[in-house]
Amino acid sequence: MKKVLVINGPNLNMLGVREPGIYGKDSLPAILEGLEQLAAELSIELEAYQSNHEGDIIDKIHEAYGTKDGILINPGAFTHYSYAIRDALSTVQLPAVEVHLSNIHKREEFRHTSVTAPVVIGQICGFGAAGYGLGLRALLPHL
Amino acid sequence: MKKVLVINGPNLNMLGVREPGIYGKDSLPAILEGLEQLAAELSIELEAYQSNHEGDIIDKIHEAYGTKDGILINPGAFTHYSYAIRDALSTVQLPAVEVHLSNIHKREEFRHTSVTAPVVIGQICGFGAAGYGLGLRALLPHL
Amino acid sequence: MKKVLVINGPNLNMLGVREPGIYGKDSLPAILEGLEQLAAELSIELEAYQSNHEGDIIDKIHEAYGTKDGILINPGAFTHYSYAIRDALSTVQLPAVEVHLSNIHKREEFRHTSVTAPVVIGQICGFGAAGYGLGLRALLPHL
Amino acid sequence: MKKVLVINGPNLNMLGVREPGIYGKDSLPAILEGLEQLAAELSIELEAYQSNHEGDIIDKIHEAYGTKDGILINPGAFTHYSYAIRDALSTVQLPAVEVHLSNIHKREEFRHTSVTAPVVIGQICGFGAAGYGLGLRALLPHL
Amino acid sequence: MKKVLVINGPNLNMLGVREPGIYGKDSLPAILEGLEQLAAELSIELEAYQSNHEGDIIDKIHEAYGTKDGILINPGAFTHYSYAIRDALSTVQLPAVEVHLSNIHKREEFRHTSVTAPVVIGQICGFGAAGYGLGLRALLPHL
Amino acid sequence: MKKVLVINGPNLNMLGVREPGIYGKDSLPAILEGLEQLAAELSIELEAYQSNHEGDIIDKIHEAYGTKDGILINPGAFTHYSYAIRDALSTVQLPAVEVHLSNIHKREEFRHTSVTAPVVIGQICGFGAAGYGLGLRALLPHL
Amino acid sequence: MKKVLVINGPNLNMLGVREPGIYGKDSLPAILEGLEQLAAELSIELEAYQSNHEGDIIDKIHEAYGTKDGILINPGAFTHYSYAIRDALSTVQLPAVEVHLSNIHKREEFRHTSVTAPVVIGQICGFGAAGYGLGLRALLPHL
Amino acid sequence: MKKVLVINGPNLNMLGVREPGIYGKDSLPAILEGLEQLAAELSIELEAYQSNHEGDIIDKIHEAYGTKDGILINPGAFTHYSYAIRDALSTVQLPAVEVHLSNIHKREEFRHTSVTAPVVIGQICGFGAAGYGLGLRALLPHL
Amino acid sequence: MKKVLVINGPNLNMLGVREPGIYGKDSLPAILEGLEQLAAELSIELEAYQSNHEGDIIDKIHEAYGTKDGILINPGAFTHYSYAIRDALSTVQLPAVEVHLSNIHKREEFRHTSVTAPVVIGQICGFGAAGYGLGLRALLPHL
Amino acid sequence: MKKVLVINGPNLNMLGVREPGIYGKDSLPAILEGLEQLAAELSIELEAYQSNHEGDIIDKIHEAYGTKDGILINPGAFTHYSYAIRDALSTVQLPAVEVHLSNIHKREEFRHTSVTAPVVIGQICGFGAAGYGLGLRALLPHL
Amino acid sequence: MKKVLVINGPNLNMLGVREPGIYGKDSLPAILEGLEQLAAELSIELEAYQSNHEGDIIDKIHEAYGTKDGILINPGAFTHYSYAIRDALSTVQLPAVEVHLSNIHKREEFRHTSVTAPVVIGQICGFGAAGYGLGLRALLPHL
Amino acid sequence: MKKVLVINGPNLNMLGVREPGIYGKDSLPAILEGLEQLAAELSIELEAYQSNHEGDIIDKIHEAYGTKDGILINPGAFTHYSYAIRDALSTVQLPAVEVHLSNIHKREEFRHTSVTAPVVIGQICGFGAAGYGLGLRALLPHL
Repeated sequence: MKKVLVINGPNLNMLGVREPGIYGKDSLPAILEGLEQLAAELSIELEAYQSNHEGDIIDKIHEAYGTKDGILINPGAFTHYSYAIRDALSTVQLPAVEVHLSNIHKREEFRHTSVTAPVVIGQICGFGAAGYGLGLRALLPHL
Repeated sequence: MKKVLVINGPNLNMLGVREPGIYGKDSLPAILEGLEQLAAELSIELEAYQSNHEGDIIDKIHEAYGTKDGILINPGAFTHYSYAIRDALSTVQLPAVEVHLSNIHKREEFRHTSVTAPVVIGQICGFGAAGYGLGLRALLPHL
Repeated sequence: MKKVLVINGPNLNMLGVREPGIYGKDSLPAILEGLEQLAAELSIELEAYQSNHEGDIIDKIHEAYGTKDGILINPGAFTHYSYAIRDALSTVQLPAVEVHLSNIHKREEFRHTSVTAPVVIGQICGFGAAGYGLGLRALLPHL
Repeated sequence: MKKVLVINGPNLNMLGVREPGIYGKDSLPAILEGLEQLAAELSIELEAYQSNHEGDIIDKIHEAYGTKDGILINPGAFTHYSYAIRDALSTVQLPAVEVHLSNIHKREEFRHTSVTAPVVIGQICGFGAAGYGLGLRALLPHL
Repeated sequence: MKKVLVINGPNLNMLGVREPGIYGKDSLPAILEGLEQLAAELSIELEAYQSNHEGDIIDKIHEAYGTKDGILINPGAFTHYSYAIRDALSTVQLPAVEVHLSNIHKREEFRHTSVTAPVVIGQICGFGAAGYGLGLRALLPHL
Repeated sequence: MKKVLVINGPNLNMLGVREPGIYGKDSLPAILEGLEQLAAELSIELEAYQSNHEGDIIDKIHEAYGTKDGILINPGAFTHYSYAIRDALSTVQLPAVEVHLSNIHKREEFRHTSVTAPVVIGQICGFGAAGYGLGLRALLPHL
Repeated sequence: MKKVLVINGPNLNMLGVREPGIYGKDSLPAILEGLEQLAAELSIELEAYQSNHEGDIIDKIHEAYGTKDGILINPGAFTHYSYAIRDALSTVQLPAVEVHLSNIHKREEFRHTSVTAPVVIGQICGFGAAGYGLGLRALLPHL
Repeated sequence: MKKVLVINGPNLNMLGVREPGIYGKDSLPAILEGLEQLAAELSIELEAYQSNHEGDIIDKIHEAYGTKDGILINPGAFTHYSYAIRDALSTVQLPAVEVHLSNIHKREEFRHTSVTAPVVIGQICGFGAAGYGLGLRALLPHL
Repeated sequence: MKKVLVINGPNLNMLGVREPGIYGKDSLPAILEGLEQLAAELSIELEAYQSNHEGDIIDKIHEAYGTKDGILINPGAFTHYSYAIRDALSTVQLPAVEVHLSNIHKREEFRHTSVTAPVVIGQICGFGAAGYGLGLRALLPHL
Repeated sequence: MKKVLVINGPNLNMLGVREPGIYGKDSLPAILEGLEQLAAELSIELEAYQSNHEGDIIDKIHEAYGTKDGILINPGAFTHYSYAIRDALSTVQLPAVEVHLSNIHKREEFRHTSVTAPVVIGQICGFGAAGYGLGLRALLPHL
Repeated sequence: MKKVLVINGPNLNMLGVREPGIYGKDSLPAILEGLEQLAAELSIELEAYQSNHEGDIIDKIHEAYGTKDGILINPGAFTHYSYAIRDALSTVQLPAVEVHLSNIHKREEFRHTSVTAPVVIGQICGFGAAGYGLGLRALLPHL
Repeated sequence: MKKVLVINGPNLNMLGVREPGIYGKDSLPAILEGLEQLAAELSIELEAYQSNHEGDIIDKIHEAYGTKDGILINPGAFTHYSYAIRDALSTVQLPAVEVHLSNIHKREEFRHTSVTAPVVIGQICGFGAAGYGLGLRALLPHL
């Protein structure tokens, strides 16, 4: 069974509360529950992690080195400036997929750029909670 | 049964021949064959269309108005400058998903920007041929 | 009687359907019918042409060389990037007027720039279907 | 009878004198005389105003609030930087049309941008004195 | 009694020590003591919080959701890049006021831009310690 | 008793009329009446001045030299381009505070930059009419 | 005998007519006739193709795959924006030379950039019709 | 005897008061007195004019048309944005010289650009009050 | 004996593992061991600290105030955006030296800019682990 | 017999040694020898000159005034910043052709711009040593 | 008697020959002869120096240290990029005046910027040969 | 014994004289004397070279090819624009270290960029004369 670390960045713990017009009405636990089902079907063991702390996310990525087979990450607002998370992803050299709930290209200018996208396999955005499932499927052949 | 138009833009007819290091070894017919199987599973009827002509792609998108339920599009290089295709997608107001074989954020600067992304539901890039299947799954709930 | 070629670029065949909040409810045939009446009053013979194909528009502009006295053009989205249409207009050296249905300065950043405007007599934007009539009147003294 | 305020900005009092190769040989009174005739035909009552003073133009626009039905304005060089005139036009919420004698897109880079265009109905440029008549016609259905 | 969370970002714990020519000689406790007095007069209950950790500030903002009536924030250097704090402020949808001790427009180029300003009610800068009191007064009618 | 000149720039005479969604429903006289009360409490003598003319505002600022103790200024749209007003404020070397009714950082790009902010003590924006009172309080210790 | 495809892009069919001050007085057939003679000397078999249609040029480039030994291309205005033609040239991996009649560095800013130049062997510009012959000679050792 | 109009723009009436470290200790009347002497030597009749009003300066420039032989202008802060004064100078087509007291290239970024410089004969900056005399000498052979 | 705090920023705990082609094969403990030897020779007492948390690094810098004589810092990816660490370094006013293992000017564009460099004594980059020793030597005369 | 000056700029004396992957294996004397043969065929008398000194190249260009009929120049790195060489070429008004061994559009960003290209007849790049012969042929009809 | 070094940069030895429409018909010796006369009147001893070599100009500026009282410099094209000459002027700390024959603000974009202007007293441009005399007069009070 | 060429660029011959507040009080010979001592300790034979001439520095770098083992270079102002020196360093492929006396990141914008840094091993700046010794130590393991 393959092991995948699912990382959610800042403010994603507030899903459902946070601007539901943009991010949808589902809470993060609800989204992860659905993802667990898919993971089971795909014979993947998930570990879900959420933090509003850049440093904690970096520590978690390092921890995945040698213990996980891949990473599914929604870096939240860190997407747009955390070169430190980018370097963490490069450092561990694990296959990683970047997911965004909203279509970042439809929103403010600053959200159009991802500093982490160049170091992951690929990026999926705009499909709400469904994006996590798509990301897991996308990651599977690279595990 | 839902009907989806699958559009492939310029040079995608040369898949397999074209820089396989970047775009993979599969030919377009091979990719579409795989996609047909998934479509069948999802009760979707596909129509695949490829053209190197911007105008033909626009005509095709217009044709989908009232005859299709959604669009899966890999605009190829038109992604980066065809405001006319962007307008065509806005015009028909069908749910659409944008797919790219390669991770456009890892490549030349000009490929980092998509002029069509702001008018589709979402974008998927970097997963090679598998991206089409992911795109179809992503489109399904919006049909 | 003076002869004027009226060119409509990509997606203008979808007028009435296409975002009526921006482009108005009139279809292109309805607009052209009104324009024909004005042309008759002004002793102008119109030939209307619409295409979603940049190349076809260039061919049509070339064809006007020696056969028409002026051009009224709404290049649609090609306004913002078709240096080839710009060169076609320069090549035939016919008096030309550029028309836009919407006020392009109120919309997305990319619509603020016209690559064709520097090679025509003048530009009219923001007056909906009425802009075509204004354009014809503007063109008249230059025929 | 509808009432329209016709505003001419800085240096337009010097028309005929000022670079006739660019702005034409007609003086401003001559242009306005022609415009009066058209206004009469269209059952519009004109008030013409010219000033080289930004503040006077703003005062005049305010004065039009509740006393005029529309504004025809050639802001001259203020086009390119007077956010105060832009705000005045927004403030009175009257239908307004922007006119330029020359094709501003053919000239110096700084003339390509209009800070007032986004708050008017539409813009007409490049047709010399005839542009005023076109502007009045364009304004008519919005009065 | 209304409850307001007062957040001070990185390095503000060093006030009095830190470049007194720019930030003044008062320590943070001294500033907050003065603010408490004003709060009492305005029938506001303050909770003061300082952290050099972006993640802690985000957690604190989330905590304010449902427990506080408003936020007074001096994000320190996070002002200029923390899109994560910006998103946190948007998420909780509490009325917030941004305060800076120094006039950020008189200093280095990078300090001229605030990424948080677009999601708060308003911004006050340049008045030293007095700015906190002004911010509290500004916030009051929005609580 | 300290003397403060309160300057309101272009279009602020139209407050109440002008886009009330952005600028509030209060007229300028109403705002100033409220400000007079606060001034009386703070032992400040106000002189209020409004003009749509940049030159008049400069003259007025010069006049304050040697006759006033401070300036409270809402430069309106001049904020974004009047280097002449900026220089006038530098010239008289009086303590000055800049106020904006709306949160300029939430609006069009051009409103994000203030050319006068670097020469005043500080800036307050986004609190509507209340901003004037805050500005007066902010100015007080500098008189 | 080596086979070379000579592609001429938009508006080059109008040579002789089109701005002769810039592009020279020779028609395209006249230029190609001269080129044929040189080709014969160099034992090269030419196929000349001109189109105003980007898509046709892409199709033609694909067709050259496996049937030609090299490409001589004057992409006309497509030089400045057709990433699709650029990709077509990369796709077929044939040695290619880019030619321009005019010195593009002496003309409008937008003509200074070639999006196709980075994928060809080299570029020749400014020598009028003679540039085609030079391009053929340049291509020869790479066939 | 040749007639020269000497125009001083905004805030120059405050010379001596205004930042003497940058602009020198001489008042404007003192500077003009010295200039009168030089003018007498050079057989030039001066008319000195100062205004803080852009519109007044434009009116004055127009007035010079047909009544003066040349213009010596220190546009003050209008240098950096008044396209209206630039157009006024172009309109009257009189030889003009631009003078600045300070070396504008040593100061804030925005002072490095002059929008009027491209329409005058030449520019002199950095020599304080002496610059006026140099400007008059520079103008002399062009009268 | 002088006391120096040696700070290593995000991902530097992974040295040896992390892209050895760029950062070298030595682990951080190995590098620090070598540095300890040099420190002993130079009569410097080192305290080494590594964290992936920006806030922890700021806290640590504050702690050095009054307890250390200087700082040797490799801010890792924080180099490129942490204005908060920059401010922390300014706050404590201790002599500091910035070190980078790789030559940041040879790598991605974003790595060419250091936001911390303007507040330290100097910067050393490109010499791998040896850079730490050089940094210590560079710091010595400033302690 | 026509006389042509062949100028080679900095580092071209090191050809063969210098990055042969980019510039080829031929030494400069070898290239010039081949060029002499072609010159003889074309009845051109060559004078070859190489210098790493910008000033020497300018002197040499001046010397060509009145003594040569044309210039073939590979300005090396001076291409990208020597406005002085550009002015020298303009000064002597001799027909000149610019040659580059490598395809400058495939390399670092700074090599994409030539400051000399706008003042020569045309530019040839990317064909290695063969480019010199092409340049000579290109120059011939202009001598 | 004061001693002034007059430096002329690249291509100024070709005056009279070089684009007389821009730079005038006078040769450099003729200009300097006229300047000598003025220098005699002003009791200044001139040493004139011209070079096309940046390094020679720097050496000459250094040589002026301790032997001259001021510098009059026309850096020619070096104006726009020679930071080395800028540093030389800063190094010797002699009063210096920058002169240009043409109005650099009327010409190509790159000529609008002077890298040397920020380190001299002032700049004079646009007055042809007369500018040297003006420069000498401007320099006089600073010797 | 290893041989190192020490190159000092323009104006460095004036050290001690030149802005001692920025560059220190030591003359270049004094600095080099200290460096010789260190070189002796490290068994390195130094050759010191200073020139204000870009071309001479290039010649000297070429001369080092095959005769030296490494280069220590302070390119002075050439750092910011001499692509020719950059190419010279690439050409000879010797290990090189770049040194700056001042912290270039604390000074004018143009000094923040080094065009030579991407082709050397590493860069050291801000440590005054001590930087040369650090540079030599840094170079040692690469000789």
